[in-house]
Amino acid sequence: MKPTIPKGTRDFTPIQVLKRNYIFDTIKKVFIKYGYMPIETPTMENLSTLTGKYGEEGDRLLFKVLNSGDYLKKANKEALGDLNSNKLTSSISKKGMRYDLTVPFARYVVMHQNEISFPFKRYQIQPVWRADRPQKGRYQEFYQCDADIVGSKSLMSEAELIQIYDEVFSNLGLNVTIKVNNRKILEGMAEIAGISEKMVAMTTIIDKLDKIGIEKVKEELLKCGISEKSVQIIIESLQIKTLTALGEVLKDSERGMKGIEELNLVHEYLDLKSTTNKVEFDITLARGLNYYTGCILEVVSNDVEMGSIGGGGRYDNLTEIFGLKDVSGVGISFGAARIFDVMTELDNFPKDLEGLLTVLLISESKVDHLEAFKLLNQLRAANISCDLYPEPAKYKRMIKYAINRNVPFVINIENGEYTLKDMVNSGQEKLNMETLIQKLSK
Amino acid sequence: MKPTIPKGTRDFTPIQVLKRNYIFDTIKKVFIKYGYMPIETPTMENLSTLTGKYGEEGDRLLFKVLNSGDYLKKANKEALGDLNSNKLTSSISKKGMRYDLTVPFARYVVMHQNEISFPFKRYQIQPVWRADRPQKGRYQEFYQCDADIVGSKSLMSEAELIQIYDEVFSNLGLNVTIKVNNRKILEGMAEIAGISEKMVAMTTIIDKLDKIGIEKVKEELLKCGISEKSVQIIIESLQIKTLTALGEVLKDSERGMKGIEELNLVHEYLDLKSTTNKVEFDITLARGLNYYTGCILEVVSNDVEMGSIGGGGRYDNLTEIFGLKDVSGVGISFGAARIFDVMTELDNFPKDLEGLLTVLLISESKVDHLEAFKLLNQLRAANISCDLYPEPAKYKRMIKYAINRNVPFVINIENGEYTLKDMVNSGQEKLNMETLIQKLSK
Repeated sequence: MKPTIPKGTRDFTPIQVLKRNYIFDTIKKVFIKYGYMPIETPTMENLSTLTGKYGEEGDRLLFKVLNSGDYLKKANKEALGDLNSNKLTSSISKKGMRYDLTVPFARYVVMHQNEISFPFKRYQIQPVWRADRPQKGRYQEFYQCDADIVGSKSLMSEAELIQIYDEVFSNLGLNVTIKVNNRKILEGMAEIAGISEKMVAMTTIIDKLDKIGIEKVKEELLKCGISEKSVQIIIESLQIKTLTALGEVLKDSERGMKGIEELNLVHEYLDLKSTTNKVEFDITLARGLNYYTGCILEVVSNDVEMGSIGGGGRYDNLTEIFGLKDVSGVGISFGAARIFDVMTELDNFPKDLEGLLTVLLISESKVDHLEAFKLLNQLRAANISCDLYPEPAKYKRMIKYAINRNVPFVINIENGEYTLKDMVNSGQEKLNMETLIQKLSK
Repeated sequence: MKPTIPKGTRDFTPIQVLKRNYIFDTIKKVFIKYGYMPIETPTMENLSTLTGKYGEEGDRLLFKVLNSGDYLKKANKEALGDLNSNKLTSSISKKGMRYDLTVPFARYVVMHQNEISFPFKRYQIQPVWRADRPQKGRYQEFYQCDADIVGSKSLMSEAELIQIYDEVFSNLGLNVTIKVNNRKILEGMAEIAGISEKMVAMTTIIDKLDKIGIEKVKEELLKCGISEKSVQIIIESLQIKTLTALGEVLKDSERGMKGIEELNLVHEYLDLKSTTNKVEFDITLARGLNYYTGCILEVVSNDVEMGSIGGGGRYDNLTEIFGLKDVSGVGISFGAARIFDVMTELDNFPKDLEGLLTVLLISESKVDHLEAFKLLNQLRAANISCDLYPEPAKYKRMIKYAINRNVPFVINIENGEYTLKDMVNSGQEKLNMETLIQKLSK
């Protein structure tokens, strides 16, 4: 009869929350410094807002919330009779749970367009939900962490977002490569290869290059009906490493040349300040999402084998789905869960995480316990994070508790005297209150 | 075709998030200083965990999540035939959304009991969902903000929680009264009045005293079948203002005297350090929730008429519903939304909220724009939150944008020179980079 939680969901223990918040805080500080402001959107959105925005699979993976009250009253009776779940759903469920932060953001911009000053720079750190089959490292509830600028076409934004990636990952002590490409270059490639109408299929296949290798990519391109010659052109283009060489190949595609020009402009900004991490042009970078129309970005760790830990790009038509045209935007996302895993593998979290207890007070007698409470008040007044074992107890028991709480210092109060015990380096000394406060204030 | 959000839900604009975070951060800092650690629990819990824990109305107000896939396959066919929504629900929905933080916390403690070191002090700030009829000031999604200690019966915890209330509200600049009572005192009153079996009904009625007044309380007590004489005793007891006087009345009730003793012990701790806000014994304080068994607490603003902005108490049986007995706990909750409203009414938020932009750079020409980007990089390297209008534009337009973004400083870059404009006190001066950085770093 022990209680459980739904498959694919998680409890976060104190240490896990503190570590995760360390990542969020590091990201947030940089967002703020770069002029981004937070928004939050509701967990539940109308299903009419969400449905059809994430493809067929996405629609299937949306968590749907049952209407309140006597929901069967308005249920589609035909669907009920046919036991047709698909058909029934819209009549018994009007709300769904946030699937990502991008569609709610587009909805927000359209709804609040009259109060927003464009260009609008917003960040958003909130959980999203997907009814994916739970498996190791894949959860039904997880945080997304996005920053976007909408209402400006300036390529300064792309440069700035690259700088944000650079700064955040430096601050986290991670060594990464920031990969850059442009959708227009991929469109140019498709044009040159004479398969513009198969552009989406092509990018979807190229996107898998890292996972399946070049031979498989070739195979899949052929399979989807692209001619041998066209595949040849695409595969050769994918070997190109520099924008200059690419300019030669794409010179007959206006679209492709526009992509190159855009990347050069981004570099004009980037060249004004060197980055800590490598920024690399990668023509094989495709990114699956079809709403991208310009620059695309992706970040990978150089030290730990793991998919991308960040990604983003420019989209020209995001708010169009909600009726607002011509609002260009560009944004990035941090893969918080993967960053957590990389940080864990590299043991990169600070030892003195914010939010940890500094000192535990203990006392074995009732009289000393009240004295300890007085000291506790004084340490707290000096802004020291501290705690008192809530009643007099056996010394051993209290020390065991201190160890379990990972606290670096213990103060034992005995006959009104204070003994400070260093739990890390295992020394101890008797001190008066002033010296204690001084010592623990760091 | 403009998109909407579900009734009873809200978007939070940047300023709203920053203000709300200011409240959360103030609370969090105090929680941490007092040795509480954060946990987070999933948004969705099994309905078996939630159902039956919040009374009949609570069950009705739970948001239920539709099972994924072909959910009608396992639906209760009889209920389907009868169009019986109530009976059908459990067969097509296994998960519900968090209704409060207390039940998930009890579930957490039971599930993690072997890894927790008791006493366990945790705080939790997460949204909850209730399918209440939406109305002004009442939302279907709102944050709760709780701190609890479980696994100790020490009354030091009650004292500490009162200190936390005192410190948080002082830090927010709010003038409050912290009301204290003890459930055992109310039980003693019921015993003395000879209506122990009607204790729950009695407290529910007393709980409404503030709203309905003493005459109505009398009426309702009589209506629920309590004799005139008993009602007389209860009403008289409710006039008592001191624990000493109460001791006289309750001297024949062991339970009641235990309640007085507990409150005296809490005061023994509290007397060791004076509080900024008034801590007041209030025998009329009942608090609706039936799981309280000892001290109960409530906080009201002295400056703004508004229900309680905080409340809590001790419960001896919280984890018993999940099979873990004898874990006493005590906790408090901050009414974040109401605190937000009080702060707004008193205009108590700091003007320089963390997360606001410090300075906006602007330039009217392409050459100056690149120069401005260089300056931008340098200001950011000095940790100044700043932004550059993303392309050269008309001066008026950029100044209007600066005003809309509420930024206190603007730097105009013209012919390579920097003019700092004070948007609050409306002066301006030409400065070099070093002086700028110095001035804006505060």
